Amino acid sequence: MRHLYHYWFSPFSRKIRIAMLEKEMEFELELELPWKRRHEFLVLNPAGTVPILIEEDGSTICGNVALTEYLDEAYDQFPLLGKTPSEKAEVRRLTEWFDDKFNTEVTELVISEKVMKRYLKMGETEAAAIRFANQNIKHHLQYISYLTDRRNWLAGDDFSYADIAAAAHISCVDFFGDVPWDHYPEARDWYARIKSRPSMQKILKDNIAGFIPSKHYSNPDF
Amino acid sequence: MRHLYHYWFSPFSRKIRIAMLEKEMEFELELELPWKRRHEFLVLNPAGTVPILIEEDGSTICGNVALTEYLDEAYDQFPLLGKTPSEKAEVRRLTEWFDDKFNTEVTELVISEKVMKRYLKMGETEAAAIRFANQNIKHHLQYISYLTDRRNWLAGDDFSYADIAAAAHISCVDFFGDVPWDHYPEARDWYARIKSRPSMQKILKDNIAGFIPSKHYSNPDF
Repeated sequence: MRHLYHYWFSPFSRKIRIAMLEKEMEFELELELPWKRRHEFLVLNPAGTVPILIEEDGSTICGNVALTEYLDEAYDQFPLLGKTPSEKAEVRRLTEWFDDKFNTEVTELVISEKVMKRYLKMGETEAAAIRFANQNIKHHLQYISYLTDRRNWLAGDDFSYADIAAAAHISCVDFFGDVPWDHYPEARDWYARIKSRPSMQKILKDNIAGFIPSKHYSNPDF
Repeated sequence: MRHLYHYWFSPFSRKIRIAMLEKEMEFELELELPWKRRHEFLVLNPAGTVPILIEEDGSTICGNVALTEYLDEAYDQFPLLGKTPSEKAEVRRLTEWFDDKFNTEVTELVISEKVMKRYLKMGETEAAAIRFANQNIKHHLQYISYLTDRRNWLAGDDFSYADIAAAAHISCVDFFGDVPWDHYPEARDWYARIKSRPSMQKILKDNIAGFIPSKHYSNPDF
């Protein structure tokens, strides 16, 4: 059986899980706490990051970009990258937007304050960091509204990695109720459509020991 | 004519320039100072990052991953990503290693202290940040030594994006003489082979107004 090493609040793990579910791939989840730097884990991926995919033949695929591209190359059912080079460029541009820009400006701040500090017993959540994230997320929700006002999905006609990456990051933040949906109805509509997909429902129904999600977290009708 | 917006000390710009030179693509360089957030530049790429490629038909490709993948898809002469899915996964894993991990642990620290602070008149270089980068780079040089001891190039038999990404980042740091080559002879041999390539020679011969490179910077015999 295929194995995927993941961590609940790793947006990159969420992205790859959603993609694998969309592609109807079978796999078993293995929980990994990357900050523990377990020896066998670092042998699999010296960069010390999740997710890591172990294929049935034992081959190991790791690295966010490598795994994202690999899935679409090796499993061409339900393609997530687009068809033409320019469609792919747009999907990848937006995927990177969320994996890089949104991650730095929002996800990392929220997760390091609300999750990592608890695990590592590093004291109280810093209000300034959360205020900063709350301010930053507005620009991203505005951008999602702008894009979905003009397109069916974020990168064009088809559901793609761009939507998956955005939803993976946003869901980590929405877990704590830190997304001001009321002011961004187009972004909310887009997220409601993603929430109602079986792949996303599965992620949103995760039971994460020690953490309780916001009320509307898994509800597509919010 | 094709145009590439770049900045001298952007390792991502260097990576794409080297790749385009390896593929013998013709293009004109346009210097962009991203921190000035020029309006026309932000219209091309709302993320505000270089490099940006404008193709002859006017299409715009931006985003580090998007551009990296696009070049190999659209210009298949001298492929840089490998052939099989697992070869590609290894090239991408190592490309990301340098573009992400090395960038955070080394390049960004050196460039923000030695370049950005001068441009933005933010005061003196902080010795602690440079010491931190100098400490971090050792692990990366060790990793390069480990890999090239076992392989012809970083990701396997062939010269690939992994070598290009590594050389792009290292060259930004080596500009300031911050690479302890003496202790890593295998890494030095690998870098000497890259330095002697016409693509890399072109990059290393850039005249960058206001900055003087370390003595050995462009010399393949160092």
